[in-house]
Amino acid sequence: MARIIGMDVLDVRFPTSRELDGSDAMNPDPDYSAAYVVLRTDEGPDGYGLAFTIGRGNDVQAAAIHALEPHLVGRDAPRDAAALSALYFELVGDSQLRWLGPEKGVVHMAIGAVVNAAWDLAARAAGLPLWRFLAAMTPEEIVGLVDFRYLSDALTPAEALELLREVEPGRSERAETLVQQGFPAYTTSPGWLGYSDEKLASLARQALADGFDMIKLKVGGDLDDDVRRMKLAREVVGESARVAVDANQRWDVDTAVRWMRELAPYDPYWIEEPTSPDDVLAHRAIADALAPIRVATGEHVQNRVVFKQLLQAGAIDVLQLDACRVAGVNENVAILLLARKFGVPVCPHAGGVGLCELVRHLSMFDFVAVSGSMDGRVIEWVDHLHEHFTDPAIVRDGRYLAPSEPGFSARLKDDTLANYRYPDGPVWTAIAKEAS
Amino acid sequence: MARIIGMDVLDVRFPTSRELDGSDAMNPDPDYSAAYVVLRTDEGPDGYGLAFTIGRGNDVQAAAIHALEPHLVGRDAPRDAAALSALYFELVGDSQLRWLGPEKGVVHMAIGAVVNAAWDLAARAAGLPLWRFLAAMTPEEIVGLVDFRYLSDALTPAEALELLREVEPGRSERAETLVQQGFPAYTTSPGWLGYSDEKLASLARQALADGFDMIKLKVGGDLDDDVRRMKLAREVVGESARVAVDANQRWDVDTAVRWMRELAPYDPYWIEEPTSPDDVLAHRAIADALAPIRVATGEHVQNRVVFKQLLQAGAIDVLQLDACRVAGVNENVAILLLARKFGVPVCPHAGGVGLCELVRHLSMFDFVAVSGSMDGRVIEWVDHLHEHFTDPAIVRDGRYLAPSEPGFSARLKDDTLANYRYPDGPVWTAIAKEAS
Repeated sequence: MARIIGMDVLDVRFPTSRELDGSDAMNPDPDYSAAYVVLRTDEGPDGYGLAFTIGRGNDVQAAAIHALEPHLVGRDAPRDAAALSALYFELVGDSQLRWLGPEKGVVHMAIGAVVNAAWDLAARAAGLPLWRFLAAMTPEEIVGLVDFRYLSDALTPAEALELLREVEPGRSERAETLVQQGFPAYTTSPGWLGYSDEKLASLARQALADGFDMIKLKVGGDLDDDVRRMKLAREVVGESARVAVDANQRWDVDTAVRWMRELAPYDPYWIEEPTSPDDVLAHRAIADALAPIRVATGEHVQNRVVFKQLLQAGAIDVLQLDACRVAGVNENVAILLLARKFGVPVCPHAGGVGLCELVRHLSMFDFVAVSGSMDGRVIEWVDHLHEHFTDPAIVRDGRYLAPSEPGFSARLKDDTLANYRYPDGPVWTAIAKEAS
Repeated sequence: MARIIGMDVLDVRFPTSRELDGSDAMNPDPDYSAAYVVLRTDEGPDGYGLAFTIGRGNDVQAAAIHALEPHLVGRDAPRDAAALSALYFELVGDSQLRWLGPEKGVVHMAIGAVVNAAWDLAARAAGLPLWRFLAAMTPEEIVGLVDFRYLSDALTPAEALELLREVEPGRSERAETLVQQGFPAYTTSPGWLGYSDEKLASLARQALADGFDMIKLKVGGDLDDDVRRMKLAREVVGESARVAVDANQRWDVDTAVRWMRELAPYDPYWIEEPTSPDDVLAHRAIADALAPIRVATGEHVQNRVVFKQLLQAGAIDVLQLDACRVAGVNENVAILLLARKFGVPVCPHAGGVGLCELVRHLSMFDFVAVSGSMDGRVIEWVDHLHEHFTDPAIVRDGRYLAPSEPGFSARLKDDTLANYRYPDGPVWTAIAKEAS
């Protein structure tokens, strides 16, 4: 049995703020970053994971990952559902670290990075891409991954088991469908707030040419600008393509409703993050006021407990899980099961650093073994930074290809680690020199 | 004008797990700790603040405080409402750091520590204890401290101003009342889960002799044990004293209701933290099922947005703010205003390291300038670790005395900082030697 003999934690940052890529109403100047973790084993394979941040504080995120080291080093390398479940429960159950959340924020994301690295390791050892590794588990094993604490008023283990068994028969056909057809994607690339109208229009046109039938615009800066941009986007893409909008938490309830009524004539497909990700009741109020415009959130939803409430309250029509915000694969399996129970489609948040690489596995597992459906499902696609990954996400004709390399795809290239290490990699020392 | 010329951050830990002081159903072995911050100024006074943790991860908390240093060092020392407001808005508005929450967990608590240190500095400069410094501000100044983002569906600045003006006339009389009579306290000392029945009974008896008319028991480990302990406590304190119980987030909705129905014959005053602090809807369901037993929570409630929802949903009957969980005085002023709006009494969480020292100021400010009432209000008292503070909380005859020293009372003694510094203070090097 392989053992984990070491854990490396690296602070990796990309100077994206210089290009306004990723700019939105709440995050004007992000430097997309990863607190990156490697679980090193004596016999191989190693496991790779990351927490995505947007710059300052990536060192704090790395420190939180470091704090988990005593739970990892010296441990047998987890290779099956039982061992991956045991690791997850041990990490979220560390009562002293739990105090710093509980189950939210920096410590919770650190657990997510490490849990995902452990899943990567196990999938590599099995020689399978994560989505296939997960989808090969029995319904009982999958249920065993989940912490049902705080969920039982919405979903019990017995119900979860039943849901999984219902779709068990078609698993291999659906896996084959993914290999043949991939999974639908939409693109956010045209819609960053920092872009000119011309750039928006040309990128929207390009999106259609590239086979996408859905794009997304950032909104929430200035109402007149947003109306003009939304109108322009609609003109460019025509009636048949979908245009979603994303306010990145800028609004209170009244502002969200007022603003979206101005955009409504241009048929927005969903409004994403209209307000605080913590505010279940506000999302409910906004959804009630704006129907049939869908309400979506999730990239900043801290854990399964808040997702549960958003679903219980009928506050969201689209659930946007994030691979790195919650406690890794285990908690995302819980979230997929909750979404299935409430009949809400999961459309993951992606972009950032490595999120496209990671979430495609989760959506494909969802399709094969949990929801059994692609209806209304679509994964975000942002065409940035993929060149830094050893197993990059690939989108063709508006669809994510099914990954076939073993693992969970978070591994960064060695060159990238050397060049973008903060603050001492050459990219950053050059920027520091320029500034001084 | 004094300037902030440096920021010291210290990792201070007390080996409390050796005594089972502070043991509860979720936290069996806490080492009460503080990530401690000193804002050093060129002309004095300095400002002192802390984040309370329970051991492992206190270094991560300290790293998060460090990450705020660029916002502090070189800045004019804040001395009035406008400057304290500007600092708070700048810290919560750092978009890159915000990503790590938003407004929750380690980064948010770091902001709390620094904001509280700034308030300490300002109150010292004014020569006033924090509660008097705050209560001397105009309603307009107090409203200006608050971030109303995400609150406007429950409370607008205009409403807040009106609430504050209503109670403005009696401020000086109420301040005088505090000096004469102090503020009601209850004690948790008898009720830790690690204690024997004998210790529970003798400490409960002692609590009555010391003038308390309310005690609290930790519950949630084993139902039979809890029924026996609750019955014993009720026998010891009689019918007239209040006995609250605290489950420290152990339960789901059904378990909470079932368990509390077994304790109901012994008339529990409130059930505290029955379930996840994130779960507004579960608290609402529990409150509906258990009325007239009060539902209380707050020590782990991450920010004003979740408190707002707990109040909007009628999910809590008692609001237990914490001085160090949220973004400091500014966010706690928002929380006090929300509680006033919804007519829910604020009974702060205390204990830990320095929480008694801090929250007495917030409750006294609440009484003088926000709620104007002591009805149903009571501050937790745990008689541990006060000897380490230069301006310790004092309880006499079951009431907190009104603090009179300038500042916010988080300052630790120099000896304590030297002895309990982790891992290199003599207390910890001795423990390490013992263990090796």
